[in-house]
Order: sequence, then structure tokens, then C-alpha cells
Amino acid sequence: MGSSFGTLFRIATYGESHGGSVGVIIDGCPPGLPIRAEEIQAELDRRRPGQSDITTPRKETDTVEILSGVHDGHTLGTPIALNVPNKDARPSAYDEMRAAYRPSHADFVYDAKYGRRMVEGGGRSSARETVGRVAAGAIARKILHLELGTDIVAWIESIEDIVMPEATEPPTRDMVETTPVRCPDPATAAAMIERIKGVRSAGDSIGGVVSCRLAPLPVGLGEPVFDRLEADLAKAMLSIPATKGFEVGSGFAGTRLRGSTHNDALETREGRIRTSSNRSGGVQGGISNGEPFLFRVAFKPTATIMKEQETVSPEGESRRLKGRGRHDACVVPRAVPIVESMAALVLVDHFLRHRAQNHSCAFSATPHMRR
Amino acid sequence: MGSSFGTLFRIATYGESHGGSVGVIIDGCPPGLPIRAEEIQAELDRRRPGQSDITTPRKETDTVEILSGVHDGHTLGTPIALNVPNKDARPSAYDEMRAAYRPSHADFVYDAKYGRRMVEGGGRSSARETVGRVAAGAIARKILHLELGTDIVAWIESIEDIVMPEATEPPTRDMVETTPVRCPDPATAAAMIERIKGVRSAGDSIGGVVSCRLAPLPVGLGEPVFDRLEADLAKAMLSIPATKGFEVGSGFAGTRLRGSTHNDALETREGRIRTSSNRSGGVQGGISNGEPFLFRVAFKPTATIMKEQETVSPEGESRRLKGRGRHDACVVPRAVPIVESMAALVLVDHFLRHRAQNHSCAFSATPHMRR
Amino acid sequence: MGSSFGTLFRIATYGESHGGSVGVIIDGCPPGLPIRAEEIQAELDRRRPGQSDITTPRKETDTVEILSGVHDGHTLGTPIALNVPNKDARPSAYDEMRAAYRPSHADFVYDAKYGRRMVEGGGRSSARETVGRVAAGAIARKILHLELGTDIVAWIESIEDIVMPEATEPPTRDMVETTPVRCPDPATAAAMIERIKGVRSAGDSIGGVVSCRLAPLPVGLGEPVFDRLEADLAKAMLSIPATKGFEVGSGFAGTRLRGSTHNDALETREGRIRTSSNRSGGVQGGISNGEPFLFRVAFKPTATIMKEQETVSPEGESRRLKGRGRHDACVVPRAVPIVESMAALVLVDHFLRHRAQNHSCAFSATPHMRR
Amino acid sequence: MGSSFGTLFRIATYGESHGGSVGVIIDGCPPGLPIRAEEIQAELDRRRPGQSDITTPRKETDTVEILSGVHDGHTLGTPIALNVPNKDARPSAYDEMRAAYRPSHADFVYDAKYGRRMVEGGGRSSARETVGRVAAGAIARKILHLELGTDIVAWIESIEDIVMPEATEPPTRDMVETTPVRCPDPATAAAMIERIKGVRSAGDSIGGVVSCRLAPLPVGLGEPVFDRLEADLAKAMLSIPATKGFEVGSGFAGTRLRGSTHNDALETREGRIRTSSNRSGGVQGGISNGEPFLFRVAFKPTATIMKEQETVSPEGESRRLKGRGRHDACVVPRAVPIVESMAALVLVDHFLRHRAQNHSCAFSATPHMRR
Repeated sequence: MGSSFGTLFRIATYGESHGGSVGVIIDGCPPGLPIRAEEIQAELDRRRPGQSDITTPRKETDTVEILSGVHDGHTLGTPIALNVPNKDARPSAYDEMRAAYRPSHADFVYDAKYGRRMVEGGGRSSARETVGRVAAGAIARKILHLELGTDIVAWIESIEDIVMPEATEPPTRDMVETTPVRCPDPATAAAMIERIKGVRSAGDSIGGVVSCRLAPLPVGLGEPVFDRLEADLAKAMLSIPATKGFEVGSGFAGTRLRGSTHNDALETREGRIRTSSNRSGGVQGGISNGEPFLFRVAFKPTATIMKEQETVSPEGESRRLKGRGRHDACVVPRAVPIVESMAALVLVDHFLRHRAQNHSCAFSATPHMRR
Repeated sequence: MGSSFGTLFRIATYGESHGGSVGVIIDGCPPGLPIRAEEIQAELDRRRPGQSDITTPRKETDTVEILSGVHDGHTLGTPIALNVPNKDARPSAYDEMRAAYRPSHADFVYDAKYGRRMVEGGGRSSARETVGRVAAGAIARKILHLELGTDIVAWIESIEDIVMPEATEPPTRDMVETTPVRCPDPATAAAMIERIKGVRSAGDSIGGVVSCRLAPLPVGLGEPVFDRLEADLAKAMLSIPATKGFEVGSGFAGTRLRGSTHNDALETREGRIRTSSNRSGGVQGGISNGEPFLFRVAFKPTATIMKEQETVSPEGESRRLKGRGRHDACVVPRAVPIVESMAALVLVDHFLRHRAQNHSCAFSATPHMRR
Repeated sequence: MGSSFGTLFRIATYGESHGGSVGVIIDGCPPGLPIRAEEIQAELDRRRPGQSDITTPRKETDTVEILSGVHDGHTLGTPIALNVPNKDARPSAYDEMRAAYRPSHADFVYDAKYGRRMVEGGGRSSARETVGRVAAGAIARKILHLELGTDIVAWIESIEDIVMPEATEPPTRDMVETTPVRCPDPATAAAMIERIKGVRSAGDSIGGVVSCRLAPLPVGLGEPVFDRLEADLAKAMLSIPATKGFEVGSGFAGTRLRGSTHNDALETREGRIRTSSNRSGGVQGGISNGEPFLFRVAFKPTATIMKEQETVSPEGESRRLKGRGRHDACVVPRAVPIVESMAALVLVDHFLRHRAQNHSCAFSATPHMRR
Repeated sequence: MGSSFGTLFRIATYGESHGGSVGVIIDGCPPGLPIRAEEIQAELDRRRPGQSDITTPRKETDTVEILSGVHDGHTLGTPIALNVPNKDARPSAYDEMRAAYRPSHADFVYDAKYGRRMVEGGGRSSARETVGRVAAGAIARKILHLELGTDIVAWIESIEDIVMPEATEPPTRDMVETTPVRCPDPATAAAMIERIKGVRSAGDSIGGVVSCRLAPLPVGLGEPVFDRLEADLAKAMLSIPATKGFEVGSGFAGTRLRGSTHNDALETREGRIRTSSNRSGGVQGGISNGEPFLFRVAFKPTATIMKEQETVSPEGESRRLKGRGRHDACVVPRAVPIVESMAALVLVDHFLRHRAQNHSCAFSATPHMRR
């Protein structure tokens, strides 16, 4: 229980890192959406291992098969099944992990919770599970693009203590994809790449912060009081492996400002009501206010490292463990499409929920999604 | 849609700030739980306005009525309805808010989304809505206490730039409740109180950070991949009005550590597998690891201030607005029981979900909730 | 768990027969719906006890209070709380039911499942629980009426072996409400009333069959494969106390026809595609086909009778029990508004779900709800 | 939306009749369950086409692949993906169905609802979709068998007007599987087979009634007021293609009995409280009472027949249509494993829900699942 996400645009993911395949079922995609396997593949290629010299060399083409729900290049309105076979599984690389739990990894808690686990590759706890999310996210972002014109762009803001200077203009996807580290500032990107390579050589790992921006968005998405837009995004982000924090708009730094400074004044601009600043991050009271939606996600350093660490065996006896296998020294660059995909899934779900309840209707002249 | 929360211990809240009443229905509370109205009232009293000289003077006794689900001092296993009538509503204090949207408040987005809103007191967007959460939370924490012995303690870690020194021992509820500001460090508390009074005099507002600790917890709570314990807590926290950020364990600061430093080594201690440090914050791979669960929540400064601000009318015309009415200059102290309540609701839900799926059973010798 | 119903128009009911009150929270009602307490009250009056000389004489005015979600005569789009205080509770009438389980009543299973029960009036297992359903149903039918023009009319088709002759035209609400037994055929109604009175005098009870018709309905409501329109209606009907069966269209009798006779031929009539007969009952493959929706519900005889019956004590010792208290000898006439309300709740939920997924949109020229 | 079923043991099915494959994801299966592909295959073989000379000759081996969630012969507690590739798709057999809607089939409503449909084989509206249900059902029944010892046996009670004589003892699976028509009475079975062959020769179709019995069951399963055991079963059954009715226990016939006759007296037998008769069908107030659970499902005659019928084109023009392709003249024998599977899915879900809420716990001495 727990592998489903969403209310109206609902996904269920499946698959272990070294099992037969990983994938996703999407239940609730509107009919008539034009979608090609290539569009899904393009997003998977951004997530897959081996895409550059700073990621794990595991060889997975991550080729998606559309098993159902799409016909003649369009969605049918029925469940869409997307399956990605695992190709490059090497169970032997994990023998020592059977005998000792990796520190700060899910090995111990999976054993404790389920009474058994698939040792190879971390099984379900592996970030390989996110393949299904990215595949579904590709469809979600297509809907957002066609319905609302929304672009979703995430990027690396910091790696360890290397922080990108504040951008003067919002990063575009092209800017982000220029370097394998996905930081839109070229100089910072270069420093990050060098740092990642150095840390990998040292057998260690590092983390960082991903920023994400969604725009344009209509006013009105979000369902208070519990299903606020930022609340569902917070859950979506903290459901990504290795995440430890989430901020929207001014975030933790905003707790140091006074209301008179923090508040975003309202004005009429470009023919509609807008805020003059955006410390709110695009949301008020759980509902989008039509400004760009801005949030940040903290990723801890990868748990699996190539240095010897203190740990215990499943029986609780003291052990020393040194990682083997093919792991990323820094997962953050590959997390960028995952963050974007989860954001897209949340947004599409709220778009459909809003349409169900608030569409202009027989008894109300409520305008549909004011911008 | 959006006013329900939880899977098995499911609450639905209702009520506007100046409507007839606010309250909650709990569907899924196990039968046989001993509970008295006084226990619920005690938590409501920690949240209610007028409890000290640093909170809003609105006079609400917030007296809870148990309408159903409890008989002879025990829960029946049927829905529990808890109703709290509104007493001190003063609609006239809100006349000017009809003519102008408050900056960084939900006024504008409610109008845009729903086509109408209850102007008085912010209607449903008011933090008064959290009364139902705290009432339900009182029942949830009783279950946790009886089933798992878990204590939930939240406290104010910072107000604006006043930050409490790192605690040498975990704060207890008694320590927290010593001062109205709910910071367990007396000197810091005094400074915070003075700051809040000063800001209130200036007609401005401030925010801060709430920390929360849950312990002891068993190993095994949390349902990957989406319903990770920290993901559901992140959603719960970001669903509280005025929140802008969430961190678990090392949080954003953890992105600056290397894996070799950040990882929590495993050892056998007190007869069970434990970590030697707790940068994970009590959770790995979305599942509790038996260590104390630690998280932090950022609260922005209150939107409603007594200073004049630039804004617009519902028609988009430029206006200047100065707040009236009875508002907190700093909501963070009153947020403490809300944070605790939402944490309790998430934990009980996961406790029940875990029990459903992972209980030792006919076909498995899995131990029930290893500690 | 189990007191919530619906996906987008979601209700949660609460309350025991002899507790403080019964009621309902509606989460997901669109904003802007004009609704007055009198409209809700009118439906409750059709369900309440004491409305005629063939129902229980329990004196309950069943006066509804709107606690939230409605302002200035219109829904706000926030949760609507409807509360109905219990007035005429007489716990002493149930003393003997503490010492012996009523045969075919829920007494025994509630004790077994929950470990305790509210003996008075059957607590939560009482049909008094349906008050909340009828209150919510009044709002649901108003939406259907305004959005789709749909009328929902249920009536008594049979009581014991007294069966109404086949109607030449669909019964209207006025025809149904002419007699307290709610059978639109006057001669049959008279015989039914006489039968009910006779059975009541004998201290016994009887059941019957309720028919229901919804029209007009658009083509396209229903969400295969599990949430077929008739599947959700079947669940809704079997969730009403004392129901034992559900049929749509030709039902069980249809199993005796051949496909060539049973199939409803298609034709173009009144400018749209229609069936020439309606053995399908208005649904094909789980989706409404634009014809009147027709279904029937079987109600068993009331379990509580004034005759002595063999039973056991909670300890399993043999007992003889004779009912006291104020009970209906035949609940079926009062079930009519409950059947209609549950049908309305299902239909509104599917209307909103359809609108979310299938509305004409940017990428599709799908017409919205063809009629 | 609508292809998911269950609360804690949750399945999501996918797949079109002539698409790449059909299948199911199970989210919520407890870990540690021993399960082999052969056990799932055995149930699929009972459902598959071509299994006998009274079913469609479409050649599908329906071979299941376990893509995830099972390792070393045991479930992992993570999602189980079961995929069944389509082998014998013959799109050309459906050309005329592109030009004319089949009467009483879902062709028209799918076009109206989704704006497009997969014509071949009826796409998602085909009973081929139930492959995923039966695969998941095989796992559900294994859990029931191991946890509760429950046997689920369904059988054909009637085909058209051929009704099986009342059984003196409950049919066993062996008795049911003796003949391809799955009627446990040999003489009736022979007549049914002959009838089906005759009807097929005539190009026509027939329906029938399936009975089902679940025993033993513990006392206490079912979650009033909406998620009553019989309500969830009613929904499950009416979600099966071609169903038109559902009865539990005495059903529609029970409406002709008086309370004094209909009520099931309680007695102590075999050391526990039992009913002396079983007109309730094993359920009271929505909760299992420990007696065998008995229900019946009505299946209409198959819509697709080989006789010419009046219908219309998608544009509404009059057409005459005669079926081609490979269809069952009577689907009821193949429906038996589907009915059993859906019943198993409902029961396991309620078993887990009951365990979550009602298990004996720290604060209650409630016995766990009294039998």
C-alpha cells in the first residue's frame, strides 16, 4: 500500500530495481490527448543512468513500451500502462549487502517492516522506481502544456556548498540541459561537475538543492484545507528518494521577514490582478494566484558510498561495509526530471479537480480559471 | 473538495471563522478507546485565542461538544463528531475587507476560485478552521500514547531572527508550556515575547520556525513509495495556514554534508538495531527506523497587519488597506498544538495502515512492529 | 471506517439513533448553488418518523441546522455541515435488548466487531443514520435538477405479495406522494395500507420492492470498469439498511430472454441516437446511454417485531425476546426518499467525475455530455 | 478513472481486448505470502477463451508474467504487477463494427463519452478486461484460504429457463468443475450444455444466474454504514460485464416473507452464537455474522449475436448489423471464476480493513475476529 498517487489523474507504480521491469498505470488521463512513445522516452532519457560521465555507468536504455490506453497516437480515456524492462541487472554486486545493512539506506527498515526484501539493487527502495513517475509525468506535462501552456523547469541551485548566483531571468529548459549537471549558470555548472568527479574519486557522495518554477498557471488551482497546492507538492517532493526538505516561495528565509516586508502587494498589471513581488511563490491559502509557482527541494548525499562504514548484520552483529556496484556519487542532476514529473502530476490532478468542481455551470457564472 | 485527510483514520473538517460552528468528523477511530471531552478540551485550550497577552483578544471559549461516536466514556468504533460553536463573531470588523483584498491573504484567490467567499474573518481560509484538526488530534495522540507510548512535543525554535540555542536534552511538554510563547529555553522565550509585543505595537507581524519531536516510535511505519512517513508529514504541515517550508532530520543543511559524514552508522544498542547519530531524523526510505522523528516547519509572518498596504478592489482598482479586527501579530505559539495534532493524525493513520498489511499473520512470522 | 461515500461529491455521515444528533458533512459541493434550509427540510420530512399513521410514532421533527458551507443562500464551495439533533430518545425502551440480541438485527455483529455497542435504538445500525444521507441528497438532487434537469422518482412497487400493475406512464412525484405508502396506483396503495396496518396489529413486519427512475440523463455518465454507473448505484442501494437485492433494467427476469429479444435496437429519434426499447435500463457497459435509468431494490421485512422470538444473550444463553419500542411494521414507504437520495448522490458524483475527465478541452473536440 | 478497486488491497487493471496486453497492479498485498505463477495461471485457465466447446474459439493462452512484487516465491509487500500479453487479435473481424454500433453493447456510449474508442474487440469494454481481475483474485483467495480457511465456490444456477434443483449440500469446486458449464447438478448441466449449443447454432445468445457461497467466514467483516460487506459485493458484481442484478440471502423473494418467518433465530451451536437458518445470507447490518455468505448474480444474454439487428451508424443513420468474430453464445460459465475473484478481492480488502481498526489492542480486550 502506498504506491498510488493522485485523486483524478491517478498513477500506480510498480517494479524493483533488479526485477523483471518497472512501470506505471495511469488511471484518469482524459481521452484524445495526442501522445507518442518518443515524447515519453525523451523524459526517461533525462533520468536514465549512464547518460553522462557524472552518473552511474549502469547500462539501461530504459525503453518504454505502451501496453494499453493509447491508440492511433491518442489516449483512449482508459488506463495507460507503461512498462520499462530492466536490462542490466547484476545481482552479484550486492552479495555483501545481504550480510550487512547499508547505513542511512532503507535495507534495515525494509527487513523490519516487510520481513523480507529484495537485496539486489535495493529492490523497491531504489530510485529506479522513479522510472514510472517520469513516464507518467511526461503525459502530465503534455496535458499542462496543451491546456494551460505551462512550462515546468527545474534546475540545480546548489551542490554541497557550491551555490548558483541568483538568476536574473528564469532558467529555460535549454539552459538547464546545456550541461550534464543541469545548473543553468555555466561557471557554476563547471565547478559542480568538477566537485562531483572529485567526490566520486574519493568514494564519497554529495547532495544539493533543486529549484523548480511552473509558469504560467491560472488562478484557482488547489483544494483547501488539506489538499492545498503546496501541501500536495510537498508530499510529492518528499516522496522522492533522498529528499529531506521542501520550501515554497520565501520558505525558511521568509520567517525572518516582517509582514510589512513579506506581503506581496496586489496591483492590476497586464489586465489582471497580480502581485508586485512573489515571496508567496505563486500560492495563497493553498490556491494558485496566477504568479509563477516556485519551490525548492533538498537532496541529501547518496547513502551508498565506496568508503568503509560501521554497520550491523541483519542479526545485529557489528560489521564494516564498503559499497560496490554502480552508484551515483551525486543523484541531484538526475533528480531534475523526477522533480518536474512529480510537479506535473500534482498540477494535472489539481487541474482536473478544479474543473470538476468549479467549472462555470448552469447555476453559476463563475469564470473558468481566471488568469 | 479537499477538507478530508487520512486513509484509515480519516477526518473531515468543516466550518467558517464567523459561521455557526467549526468541527470535525473522525471516521475510522478504533472502538474501545477511553476518551473524555476534557482531554479534547485541553488541547483546544492550547490553540484558542485569548489564552495569553501575546495572542489575539478574540473571545472564544472553543467549547467542544461530542455529538456522536463516544458512549460511556469510550469510542464506539463509529464516526466521532466534534462540534465547536463560534461565539465571538464580529462581522462589522471586516467591512473594509469586502472592498479590498488583503495582500498575501487568501481573499483574492477564494473569490477567483469559488466566485464568492465569506468575507467575515476570512471564512474557511481562517486558521480558525484548525479547531477541528486539534480536536481530532487529541484523540489521535491518545491512541499513540496508549498503543506505542509515543510523546509528541513541538516547540518554537525561532521567531524572526531570535533563535533558541541547541537543546542539550529533548524539550518536554512541561518545558514548552512554561511560557506563552512555547519556547523551552527561558531566556530565548523572554526575548521572543518582548519581540512579539514590540512588533504588535508597531502594527506589524512576524513568523518563525516550529520544531517537533516524536518518540518513541516503532520501526516500520510508513508506506513507500508515495506515502512515505515524511511525505505525509510534509503534506500535513504544508496544509497548515501560513506554512512555507518543511524539513526532516538534517534538512536543507544536510545538503552541505558528504555521505561519509551524513550517514547514520548502525549499531546494536539497548538490545536492538539503532543508529549512532540521527541526521536521518528517524526515517529511512520513507519508513520509521525506531529513532526519534524530528522535523521543522517554517511559518511566514501573519498576512493581516495594522499598517497600510497597497492592494486592489475585487474589480482590480487600486486601494490602500489597513487591517482592523483582532489578529495575532505572531501565530507561531498557537501553531504548536496544530503541528502536534497534524503529526498525531499522520502517525495514527500509518499505525493503522501498518497493522492492516504487516501484522504477523497466518502465513508469515513477521514480528509486529519491532522496536 | 466506512461512513464516507463518493469520490468528488463526498459525504461523511455521523450519529447514533439515541445519541446527541445525526448529520452529514458534504465535501465537494460546487460553489454558487442556491439552497435553502427549507429545501433540505422538505426531504427530511418525507423520511421522518411519525409522518403518517402507518409509520413509527417516534416523535422527531428532524429539524436541520446548516452549520457551515452556505452563506447568503448559496453554497460557498467549502464543506457543508448539516446537523439534526435527536429529540425523542427513550433509552428505557431498550433495556431488554441489552440482555438479548434481536434476531436478524445488527446487535450481535456490532458487539462482535466493535466489542461494544450503543444498545439504545440500535445506535449506529439504526435507519436513523440515513437522516444525513437524505439531507445531503436534497442538495445533490438540486444540482442534478439545475445542471441536467433530472427528476428522480422512486415508488413502492410491491409490499409482500401485493404488486402494483405495470404503469402505463412513469409515476411522478405528485402521484407517489398522494398516499402515505408511496405507491402511485391508488387501488394498490389502499390494499398496501390495509396490509401494513393488519401486519402491525399482528405484531409482525413486512417488506417490499422500491422502483426508481431517473430522467432525463445525458449520455456518458459512469466510469468503467469498476465505477460503472450501475455498480455504484448497486453499492449505494445495498448500503441502505434492510436491503437484500438490486436490479437494473431487465434484472433477473432478463436472464430468461435471448439476446435477439433482449437487445435494445438503436435508432435516431428526436434528433439523437436512442434505443427503441429499454431493457438495458439506461446503461450500457457501465455508462448512461441517455435513456431513463431504471432500477429496483428489495427490502426485507423489518427485523424488530412485537412477537416473541428465539435468541441468545450476549453470553450465548438461550433467551426469548419480544420487541418493544416504536418501530415501523414496514419501512419501505419511508425508504423511498432514502433510495432517491442515494441515487442523487451517485449521479452527482459521476456528473462531476465526468466533467473532470471528459469535458471538451484544448486538445479534443469531444462534445460535453451529449444528450 | 474508475479502473481501480479496493481500499487496502487495491487493484488497478489495464488493457484493451486487442491491444498489447491486459493486466493488473496489486498495491497492498501483505508480504510473505507464498505464491507461484502456476496458482494464478490455474484461475486464468478457468476464465480463458477456448477452454471447451461451449466457449468462444478465440485462441488465447492467457499466460501470466509476474513483473514485480514477488521474489523467491513470496510476496515482497510491494506492488505486484501481473501482465498477460494478447496473442490472438484479429482486428479485421471488426470492420463492420466501425460503421455500425452493436445494439446493447458499449460501442455507442464509449464513442459518446470518450470521443473515440478502440473498435477492435470492444477495446476496454470487452470482458477480456477481467483477466486482470482473475489474476489478482487468485492472490486474494490464497490469502483468504491461509488466513481464514475460506473457500469461495460459485456455480451456474440457471441458464435461460433451465434452473438447477435446490442443492442438498453446498457445491464444491470439484463438483462445479466437472462440466464445462459449471453447474454442479449433472442432469441440469447436460441440459444447459445442449441449450447453449442450440442457441449458438441459431446465432443467438442466452444468459443466466450465478450463485456464490463463501465459508467459513469470521464474524465482523464489513464497514457500515456505506462499506457494508454486501454493498461492496454488490458493486463488485455489478462491475462485471453483462450483469443486471444482485441478491444476498433471501433477496427479492425475501420481500414476500413476514418478519416472524424471515428472521434468523439465534442459538448457541458448536460453541458459538449462530443462526438456525440463513435467510440473511451471512450478513447483518453490513457485517458478516459467521454463517456462509450467499449471493446471486444475474447475467443478461450476450449482446453480440450472429443475427441481423436494427441499429445506427456513428452518424445516426439507420443500419442493419450482423455480428462476426468469435463470441460466446453464453458467457455465464466463464463468469464463474470472475464472480469468485471479485468476491475474493472484496473479502480480502475487508479482512485487512477490519484488522486495521478492530484488532485487539493495548486499550481494548476486543477479541480478534470471533468465529
